[in-house]
Amino acid sequence: MSVSLAPRTLARDVQATQEKVRLQGSVHTVRLLGGVTFIILRDRSGMIQVVAPGRVDLPREAVVEVSGTARADQRAPGGVEVTAEGIAILARPAALLPFDISKPVLHASLETLLDHRALSLRHPTIAAVFRIASALVEGFRRHLAGEGFIEIHTSKLVATATEGGAGLFRVEYPDRPAYLAQSPQLYKQICVGAFERVFEIGPVYRNEPHETTRHLNEYTSLDVEVGFADLDGLLDLETALLRAMLDAVMSAAPQALETLGLTLPEVDHIPRVRLSEAKARLRPHGLDYHPHEDLNPAGERLLGRLLLEEGHDFVFLTHYPVPARPFYALPDPEDAALTLSFDLLFRGVEVTTGGMRIHDSTQLRENLARLRLDPESFGGYLEAFACAMPPHGGFAIGLERLTAQLVGAPNVRWATLFPRDRHRLEP
Amino acid sequence: MSVSLAPRTLARDVQATQEKVRLQGSVHTVRLLGGVTFIILRDRSGMIQVVAPGRVDLPREAVVEVSGTARADQRAPGGVEVTAEGIAILARPAALLPFDISKPVLHASLETLLDHRALSLRHPTIAAVFRIASALVEGFRRHLAGEGFIEIHTSKLVATATEGGAGLFRVEYPDRPAYLAQSPQLYKQICVGAFERVFEIGPVYRNEPHETTRHLNEYTSLDVEVGFADLDGLLDLETALLRAMLDAVMSAAPQALETLGLTLPEVDHIPRVRLSEAKARLRPHGLDYHPHEDLNPAGERLLGRLLLEEGHDFVFLTHYPVPARPFYALPDPEDAALTLSFDLLFRGVEVTTGGMRIHDSTQLRENLARLRLDPESFGGYLEAFACAMPPHGGFAIGLERLTAQLVGAPNVRWATLFPRDRHRLEP
Repeated sequence: MSVSLAPRTLARDVQATQEKVRLQGSVHTVRLLGGVTFIILRDRSGMIQVVAPGRVDLPREAVVEVSGTARADQRAPGGVEVTAEGIAILARPAALLPFDISKPVLHASLETLLDHRALSLRHPTIAAVFRIASALVEGFRRHLAGEGFIEIHTSKLVATATEGGAGLFRVEYPDRPAYLAQSPQLYKQICVGAFERVFEIGPVYRNEPHETTRHLNEYTSLDVEVGFADLDGLLDLETALLRAMLDAVMSAAPQALETLGLTLPEVDHIPRVRLSEAKARLRPHGLDYHPHEDLNPAGERLLGRLLLEEGHDFVFLTHYPVPARPFYALPDPEDAALTLSFDLLFRGVEVTTGGMRIHDSTQLRENLARLRLDPESFGGYLEAFACAMPPHGGFAIGLERLTAQLVGAPNVRWATLFPRDRHRLEP
Repeated sequence: MSVSLAPRTLARDVQATQEKVRLQGSVHTVRLLGGVTFIILRDRSGMIQVVAPGRVDLPREAVVEVSGTARADQRAPGGVEVTAEGIAILARPAALLPFDISKPVLHASLETLLDHRALSLRHPTIAAVFRIASALVEGFRRHLAGEGFIEIHTSKLVATATEGGAGLFRVEYPDRPAYLAQSPQLYKQICVGAFERVFEIGPVYRNEPHETTRHLNEYTSLDVEVGFADLDGLLDLETALLRAMLDAVMSAAPQALETLGLTLPEVDHIPRVRLSEAKARLRPHGLDYHPHEDLNPAGERLLGRLLLEEGHDFVFLTHYPVPARPFYALPDPEDAALTLSFDLLFRGVEVTTGGMRIHDSTQLRENLARLRLDPESFGGYLEAFACAMPPHGGFAIGLERLTAQLVGAPNVRWATLFPRDRHRLEP
């Protein structure tokens, strides 16, 4: 179905058939050569060369409608070009552009690109990142819907901290303070009691005191929670899910992959390594951890390198110690010092945290007491367990981190449309 | 792919084949009759009758695993039941349940149902509403992905009001205040400059001073924005989109429709009525509006009734007056007092607002000046226009309102998992 009235041809659909076409898009490059104007026109599908006789006064980024005839030309990119018979200018840029997006490689700092998001997003290498992110999300949803999950939308305004921790953003709410949710964890668990299999895609908030290349104050969390699961089942589910997400990138964003020169990683089998084993592997390299500790970023990076040498882009680390996990993490029945939990590292960066949850009401209340958390603050959550809950677990994938790792970006901000950190609240 | 290790049968898949089945779910009802215990077991797929010899001590909502044999029984609902050979209790409710969810009709006030969300969501008539909402969102995404749209995730933390209005929630952000975004409007427009066709599904915030049956402080906005569009194209797009969303409900949630006894409305053709004509139709009924005014809820309801009598569940109202629309609304070139904008009413309730946007940089700046809005506050947005933007427009559908109208709920809270208003911040 066409959204506009007149028939329109997309750049990628232009065939060298001598047929009349009508294109709409932005002027990516323009140059005068031997009395003829060559325009590379960019639309949502790609680029096409347009040739117009004489000198055409067209600044880069002008929005135009071109009527013309498509024909073969070996010298044109893609072997086809459009001879313009009419060019209507729909919008002109008002002034000098902040930087040049017409070259294949962008010469501007990340700060500059983020300061001028309206322009930088138009560069093919940056747009490609978000086309890939969109495809990842499409694959996520499609796979889970096929497995009987329903999508939920839970509140991001909460009365108390989800996990009893610091790092909350306070909101001025009528009569009392509210906070921005750090995760939909407690809500997705409540929903498992009703729907058994749920997922949610939405923003989560961390008031991060530091500025790092992998933390943001706001990111998109792909949350999954499933009833009647066990730890191996969760790892099987996430493996199949990642495969579906990468397949979706292949089918929905092949051009973005080509633009970035990317080959997708294989996800046939993801090794499952206990955290204690991972620590043992890192010890000879001079990294020594306390049994209660999680790995630090340096350890994750080194482990990622060791596994990449064995041909694995991904690794599940399992059985984290109790002190490294939140109050709802299910202890391992075979070793009460450990939890049935996991992280997923992708090329040395954590992109998922998950695990089995405590489903027994008494055990949950004992854990809250042990951590000196007030059960009053968890009333609506605890009620789910008072009404009986199935054994369940789940996980959350950080969309921006996953995308950044996939495209090889050194900073998660490359994969965030409008990043938020201590210093950045605009655009 | 099974998430759990042992093979499992869902309630809806049980066939009267004398085969061994293993079920997992919650005890919906239990009764002792003639020395035999009859259990209705509920799982994510539906319900099934389980018969166990003797008296089984099972409270309602207990989570169980049943091993048994499926066989035909004309007296059982669905004509099939499972004779239990083993029942393992996986979780017991801790105490008395706050109310009874075993009856087809729930006898509790909306307040009570919202106070005890963990339990009320388990009732089939309430769960059905959210299965329908999930299917609507699935249809929304699938249709738009097929039309070349990509999904975006923009920030909900903004430095200034999107539309220069009141009703903002203030967030304590490092060094300066931030606000919760009232809509992704400005961001989705910026993204049109890069991706041409974008959609977003996410929370939006309104600090509503009043409590009404159709307003909330937080709701889920289904946002669409498209380049190279015109007003009729937008209305065509939304019509096709609604059809796809209702088709998705039919295919993904047929059981939910059956539970609620719902027939979906037809969306073959949606009448397009100018707001001025709508007002003329309401005048004989004693409703008189100023030319600058929008309809009030009473007018919308009456108009909805008049159109329903003509067989139309939906109506597009178009060409709203300039003062009734935000600064970015595109004036009608044929009448500068009007805008190329629209609302969609569904059975007398507004479920969509949309329209064409100003894409000319100078015109946009003039409009900001006219409304005394500071262009400094719109820097990142205005830059998109300084870099030239295509003619574009879009719309936003309120998911909870659409769902509530579809299921015939008298209050949008019926279609909100965890509603937020002046008085409600928990659970």
